[in-house]
Amino acid sequence: MARIGIIGSEGRMGQAIAALLEGADHELAGGADRGGDAARLADASDVLIDFSSPQALSITLHAAIGAGVPVVIGTTGLTEDNHRAIDEAARAVPILQTGNTSLGVTLLAHLVEEAAKRLGPAWDIEIVEMHHRMKVDAPSGTALLLGEAAARGRGIDLADNTESGRDGHTGERASGAIGFAALRGGTVAGEHSVILAGEEERITLSHHAENRAIFARGALRAAEWLIGRAPGRYGMDDVLDL
Amino acid sequence: MARIGIIGSEGRMGQAIAALLEGADHELAGGADRGGDAARLADASDVLIDFSSPQALSITLHAAIGAGVPVVIGTTGLTEDNHRAIDEAARAVPILQTGNTSLGVTLLAHLVEEAAKRLGPAWDIEIVEMHHRMKVDAPSGTALLLGEAAARGRGIDLADNTESGRDGHTGERASGAIGFAALRGGTVAGEHSVILAGEEERITLSHHAENRAIFARGALRAAEWLIGRAPGRYGMDDVLDL
Amino acid sequence: MARIGIIGSEGRMGQAIAALLEGADHELAGGADRGGDAARLADASDVLIDFSSPQALSITLHAAIGAGVPVVIGTTGLTEDNHRAIDEAARAVPILQTGNTSLGVTLLAHLVEEAAKRLGPAWDIEIVEMHHRMKVDAPSGTALLLGEAAARGRGIDLADNTESGRDGHTGERASGAIGFAALRGGTVAGEHSVILAGEEERITLSHHAENRAIFARGALRAAEWLIGRAPGRYGMDDVLDL
Amino acid sequence: MARIGIIGSEGRMGQAIAALLEGADHELAGGADRGGDAARLADASDVLIDFSSPQALSITLHAAIGAGVPVVIGTTGLTEDNHRAIDEAARAVPILQTGNTSLGVTLLAHLVEEAAKRLGPAWDIEIVEMHHRMKVDAPSGTALLLGEAAARGRGIDLADNTESGRDGHTGERASGAIGFAALRGGTVAGEHSVILAGEEERITLSHHAENRAIFARGALRAAEWLIGRAPGRYGMDDVLDL
Repeated sequence: MARIGIIGSEGRMGQAIAALLEGADHELAGGADRGGDAARLADASDVLIDFSSPQALSITLHAAIGAGVPVVIGTTGLTEDNHRAIDEAARAVPILQTGNTSLGVTLLAHLVEEAAKRLGPAWDIEIVEMHHRMKVDAPSGTALLLGEAAARGRGIDLADNTESGRDGHTGERASGAIGFAALRGGTVAGEHSVILAGEEERITLSHHAENRAIFARGALRAAEWLIGRAPGRYGMDDVLDL
Repeated sequence: MARIGIIGSEGRMGQAIAALLEGADHELAGGADRGGDAARLADASDVLIDFSSPQALSITLHAAIGAGVPVVIGTTGLTEDNHRAIDEAARAVPILQTGNTSLGVTLLAHLVEEAAKRLGPAWDIEIVEMHHRMKVDAPSGTALLLGEAAARGRGIDLADNTESGRDGHTGERASGAIGFAALRGGTVAGEHSVILAGEEERITLSHHAENRAIFARGALRAAEWLIGRAPGRYGMDDVLDL
Repeated sequence: MARIGIIGSEGRMGQAIAALLEGADHELAGGADRGGDAARLADASDVLIDFSSPQALSITLHAAIGAGVPVVIGTTGLTEDNHRAIDEAARAVPILQTGNTSLGVTLLAHLVEEAAKRLGPAWDIEIVEMHHRMKVDAPSGTALLLGEAAARGRGIDLADNTESGRDGHTGERASGAIGFAALRGGTVAGEHSVILAGEEERITLSHHAENRAIFARGALRAAEWLIGRAPGRYGMDDVLDL
Repeated sequence: MARIGIIGSEGRMGQAIAALLEGADHELAGGADRGGDAARLADASDVLIDFSSPQALSITLHAAIGAGVPVVIGTTGLTEDNHRAIDEAARAVPILQTGNTSLGVTLLAHLVEEAAKRLGPAWDIEIVEMHHRMKVDAPSGTALLLGEAAARGRGIDLADNTESGRDGHTGERASGAIGFAALRGGTVAGEHSVILAGEEERITLSHHAENRAIFARGALRAAEWLIGRAPGRYGMDDVLDL
């Protein structure tokens, strides 16, 4: 049983992680917000999970180093300075930083990269996602992450090979393009499909989230995995041994 | 066993229909192209199928009236004058005119209208289609036909309620919108899904074409159905008794 | 704003309905369990929702008649005696009885019946469903309800035309059969697809439940609809005006 | 441009391969059936493709060794003696033997093994396939091949962990089981989905065959790949560099 400390405990992810801990094998060591009490929390925890803000990151890292505890960082919008600070801190403690804590999405990205690499550019790649009606941007961050995986597998640059939001007279599909389409409606938590379309056959690799608790669940799984590791910088790929 | 006369027999659809007739219960009465021999063909046929051009339509109609045979018209791009000529000819012979001869798509449009009507505007409607990599326009004609059916069911105007090709910062989904997304790749003959997304549940109504022969098959089914009908103007809905 | 009385308020559905009422436009009039206080609850309610037991049904009906309030009955396992008692009570008050309170499933069954009727027996019908790993029976009750709708559309008897759980040397598909397949795994709340497979084209009609709250939501919607109706017996079809 | 010799040229696959060669970059060297002319055909070919019978295999292998040409063997129902003969011949010439020549299925099996391995037994695995109404056995050979890949990834034996054709009171899903379900209808060429269902998320890996020409196409791709290789025994995995 591990003691989990949550930085950003009042945020949506922080609350979701705390809710998961009820009735789980772990114990909530406590929470810290807006930089307060991070050092004390680190002392009482076996691992920290940070879903706060880029501004609060340095306090978290100092607290983790001071207490010698590992940190899972799921905060988004990190700057280059943030990343340098993480690299620095990772000499002292194990740090897992990721933009997506879902195990399923992490594995899917790995499979997409592999499929794109093996099948080659003769198989067209399309990525379609659906989210609830309140989502304001398209494509989703996860769709872009999957597109990056496909581009990596093909050895091309995603930005130079994107076709997104086809509408009107588009002309034939560009050779080598990676296409994106976004559906919005209802209360859909998140669905992503990557279609590889060849000559008279197709492979479709999909992820379906039943609700947003999977991100909290993945963060917790990452935290469990991180305890006892050697200092260094890790990602979700390492949790799945990819 | 019926004798089938094909106007536009050298075109893609004309050839597909002729291919279906080999080994079928029907007989190919012959073909006519560029207006030639239409009257003679009509005399030798129990029914005509026209997939030629708007320009050739009046010759077809005259031939059909002269011989007293029914006509299935699948020609696209008809003008208002064409439609008036069809209405006129339909006083003398039975005429079935349609922009889509697939039985499955015809039924799907009917189901979409019904679903949109019964569920009401609280269920968001999204239409996603996939076609082969050579298709140059988006959304597909069939997707728009399904969108029209949804709008009819809701009692709204499609043109005023379309969200197509979302990309970038789109903001929240507009209330009452009908969304369209287009996927392109490989050799896909045609797939269409209409998603109705409510609170924590979704209905998806899909059509999947294994190849483009279904349009020839539907035209033939329409021709069989039309023989012996009273003069008048019909559509694919009538074939399915919708 | 309506006052909602829940019979069977301690059961899973009763609790789910009470949870939905928090923050909704309606008010929880109270709950009754094991027959206690039903009459008093009916007096304080604009409508009753009963998800209790067949044994408790007569008490509910007497309470409803006494207070002159409508009742939604979602209790399963009703006997013929129960149904006769409902018919009798429906002379005095409006009663909506149903085995499935999901609006989406209700509509889907209607669409399936229509599709099966229009396409005819040349289109093979398959029903596939997926539920969580704890479910102990197959096919699901909803899959059977959809199969009944398909059989009704075709004018055949489902029991005489079922192929369920194919495994091994099955021989060719029986003409006119309605097939069932059951998937189990994870925490899936419930997915159902009805596939109508013709010559080189397919129609698929699906329902996807994000979680089991949709049944509570549908019961509440039925209750709203029932207030102010004339005495008589109703079903979920009436709520959707099917 | 390679000269392709087809052993079993009158069979369904032999004819499909010959049809593909029309208009392709390759040349049909000729065909041999029932053992006749295999040696002469081998002399005139850059590569042989054998879709004949286990009985004819030794003649094919002798012809290939005699002429020093590689062979793709897609014949099914091979005996242990056949496999030993292939191993022997593979010392002299390159031989690619496979039970499934689809590139897409080959890749999918690889992805399924990887996913099953990385996600572990807490994610339930279900395999569902759909084929045309004439298919007489269930599950399909490809479904079993995918099940074997999943079992390999998990390090378990498929035969001991199969749940196929659920129907009736099945009880809860067995922990670690790999489930199979078979749909039949219409003219479906072949669809396979492997679902990995975890806590509130799912991954689905699917293959969709538009028609059966993909097996001929894959055999041809394997033949191209095999020309110029070192003697040895290969599989479809090698073509995709898996």
